[in-house]
Amino acid sequence: MYEVNETVRIESFSDAVFAIAITLLVIEIKVPGHEQVAKTGLLYSLIDIWPSYLAFVTSFATVLVIWVHHQRIFAILNKYDHKLFYYNGLLLFFVTFIPFPTALLAEYLLYRESKVAAIFYTGIFLAISLSFDLLWRHVSKQLLSKNAIMLKKDEALEITKQYKFGPPLYLLAFGMSFVSEPLSITICLLLALFFALRGWPFKEPL
Amino acid sequence: MYEVNETVRIESFSDAVFAIAITLLVIEIKVPGHEQVAKTGLLYSLIDIWPSYLAFVTSFATVLVIWVHHQRIFAILNKYDHKLFYYNGLLLFFVTFIPFPTALLAEYLLYRESKVAAIFYTGIFLAISLSFDLLWRHVSKQLLSKNAIMLKKDEALEITKQYKFGPPLYLLAFGMSFVSEPLSITICLLLALFFALRGWPFKEPL
Amino acid sequence: MYEVNETVRIESFSDAVFAIAITLLVIEIKVPGHEQVAKTGLLYSLIDIWPSYLAFVTSFATVLVIWVHHQRIFAILNKYDHKLFYYNGLLLFFVTFIPFPTALLAEYLLYRESKVAAIFYTGIFLAISLSFDLLWRHVSKQLLSKNAIMLKKDEALEITKQYKFGPPLYLLAFGMSFVSEPLSITICLLLALFFALRGWPFKEPL
Amino acid sequence: MYEVNETVRIESFSDAVFAIAITLLVIEIKVPGHEQVAKTGLLYSLIDIWPSYLAFVTSFATVLVIWVHHQRIFAILNKYDHKLFYYNGLLLFFVTFIPFPTALLAEYLLYRESKVAAIFYTGIFLAISLSFDLLWRHVSKQLLSKNAIMLKKDEALEITKQYKFGPPLYLLAFGMSFVSEPLSITICLLLALFFALRGWPFKEPL
Repeated sequence: MYEVNETVRIESFSDAVFAIAITLLVIEIKVPGHEQVAKTGLLYSLIDIWPSYLAFVTSFATVLVIWVHHQRIFAILNKYDHKLFYYNGLLLFFVTFIPFPTALLAEYLLYRESKVAAIFYTGIFLAISLSFDLLWRHVSKQLLSKNAIMLKKDEALEITKQYKFGPPLYLLAFGMSFVSEPLSITICLLLALFFALRGWPFKEPL
Repeated sequence: MYEVNETVRIESFSDAVFAIAITLLVIEIKVPGHEQVAKTGLLYSLIDIWPSYLAFVTSFATVLVIWVHHQRIFAILNKYDHKLFYYNGLLLFFVTFIPFPTALLAEYLLYRESKVAAIFYTGIFLAISLSFDLLWRHVSKQLLSKNAIMLKKDEALEITKQYKFGPPLYLLAFGMSFVSEPLSITICLLLALFFALRGWPFKEPL
Repeated sequence: MYEVNETVRIESFSDAVFAIAITLLVIEIKVPGHEQVAKTGLLYSLIDIWPSYLAFVTSFATVLVIWVHHQRIFAILNKYDHKLFYYNGLLLFFVTFIPFPTALLAEYLLYRESKVAAIFYTGIFLAISLSFDLLWRHVSKQLLSKNAIMLKKDEALEITKQYKFGPPLYLLAFGMSFVSEPLSITICLLLALFFALRGWPFKEPL
Repeated sequence: MYEVNETVRIESFSDAVFAIAITLLVIEIKVPGHEQVAKTGLLYSLIDIWPSYLAFVTSFATVLVIWVHHQRIFAILNKYDHKLFYYNGLLLFFVTFIPFPTALLAEYLLYRESKVAAIFYTGIFLAISLSFDLLWRHVSKQLLSKNAIMLKKDEALEITKQYKFGPPLYLLAFGMSFVSEPLSITICLLLALFFALRGWPFKEPL
């Protein structure tokens, strides 16, 4: 067990991973080719790739909200152990993977097999919510010193209460992807908004 | 509301996002293919992609100046709230998006439909100036403690005075893109210079 | 020789390099093309690229574990010298290179010449374990002040003991790649687990 | 003028830019295509792209050495002004650009017009050495407080003495690229070594 001022590097490494994952999303938006543009015009070609924008916005909002909650958790823990590196690593694993299902969804949303892409996409989000849950359980049970538990008890309880909704709601999005792709993506967008709104102990409105 | 020493992570996350967005720009400059080089020679092929260099320089200068102003703002705020994460997130959203319109402009500047590319490009810059405006309004109204307002009043006033020019000037660039693409890009370049020159409270010359 | 509080930048630079190398891995996983999908369906196309996932997981786990050990080493050193920059730079050189052999393995694992790809892949891991060994030897011999040696002697001994296994075990993986590709990749995965398990002075279980 | 503890963000932003530029280099090394491999075998195909490795090593070594000197300079300055952001920005501009001439050199080194690629490549390195020179002149003249000048005079003199060699030596590499490409690349590699060897006030051997 180590004191909390030593968590600088796990935070700066995580910040960089979140920042890169969120920035790489744009690479997957492809500039329309000249052949396509010759046929339909540049304006229409740019409108035509709206699934790319939708996937970009949804993934960006989700990663941003995860990052906000990540720094929230690390702001209240005050010791760390070996396991934290690997629970955190598991979360980062799924976060770094996001650009792939995002590109997949953008590519196949308008095609016959869009369901497979939506299942894959929401499945990764479900995996993220589960690994976030694991991380928070470990932190709340092991890494809040007695002192901190007293001082930050309300905040920890508030977080626990809110995070209970994560996995079931993402399971809902995942389940919905088998039925309706647009609806499952919409749920993911709304969930990002929901966790943005409620993502603070003092329940400030967004 | 939290004390300012806690803004480390929002700053380091933002720094990483700016750094990646500014560095990804180069990926969009494509090495000329062998076919093209066989026809015109490598030297001419490298000159031929000058729109890529122009778009790279303009976007680089703009992101650099935004970053300088971003750290300037965060250097004077001394508390933060939940909303700051999302105002900042909105700014970062448009910043991470920059490589796409940059690549679009580079690809289509010499083609018939360059106007669409220029409108898209200057439109993103307009969106950035608006989201920067939102961020600064929130900071200046909510996140300067009384104490800081006294000490840093001049700087805050100076910033407010300068930032008033942002949205209208970028609106001008956006409007101009409907008339003349080269002129609108030139305005964007000059605006980066303008905000670099005036971007400091003590009005030092660049 | 400098005091340890000055190692902030070598740590933040290294953190960023690790974070980018680990996040770039996903770029090499290519979204299946429409032609392929038309033939076999999207689901099968996504299963078909399992070597990409395997290479991604193996490389991600390895880079994560290297990073954990890197911060472990930098947490116990308490001075630094000029050579540290270049020993560290040599390690980062191989780490930044990882996306290339990862992509190579993903591309050729199912083809006739998979052996060449596996040799290349495990060879880079061997080079990393050797450069890590060099870094640790330098740190343990030169950069632990007398004071620190007393306080952290057990930890340093523990690290030395564990790291002795690195090069020979990665040599084994490298040697095995000449015989069986799947076995050599499996060994790499198990080694990441082994160094995760043992990667802490107090021998906590993972 | 601001106190030095405020340079955290310019350092962390620069660290991230250096880290990304150095890590993006590997993206330009392309996995050999199946057609090529079918003709010559995977092993030969991997040997065949040696210019990619050479360009990668040269650029990596150069960026690493620039970064080491960058942190060296920022470790001795103890105030900063507005201009520092833009001198530093100019240096970062050329650093972020490096992946392009690196890819260009890798692609055309074995072709008839390799001279153009080598001129472009060494030209960027010359530009970097000039912008580094500008940055150091500004720091050494404006940003060392009287106090610091006394304490760090030797180090500043030593740096000035060493940096005098930068622009003329890179001019030599640039000039040589008009005559012999291999020789000019070799000079660049040797210069990285030279600045690594001499890059420290106490003249420790590497």
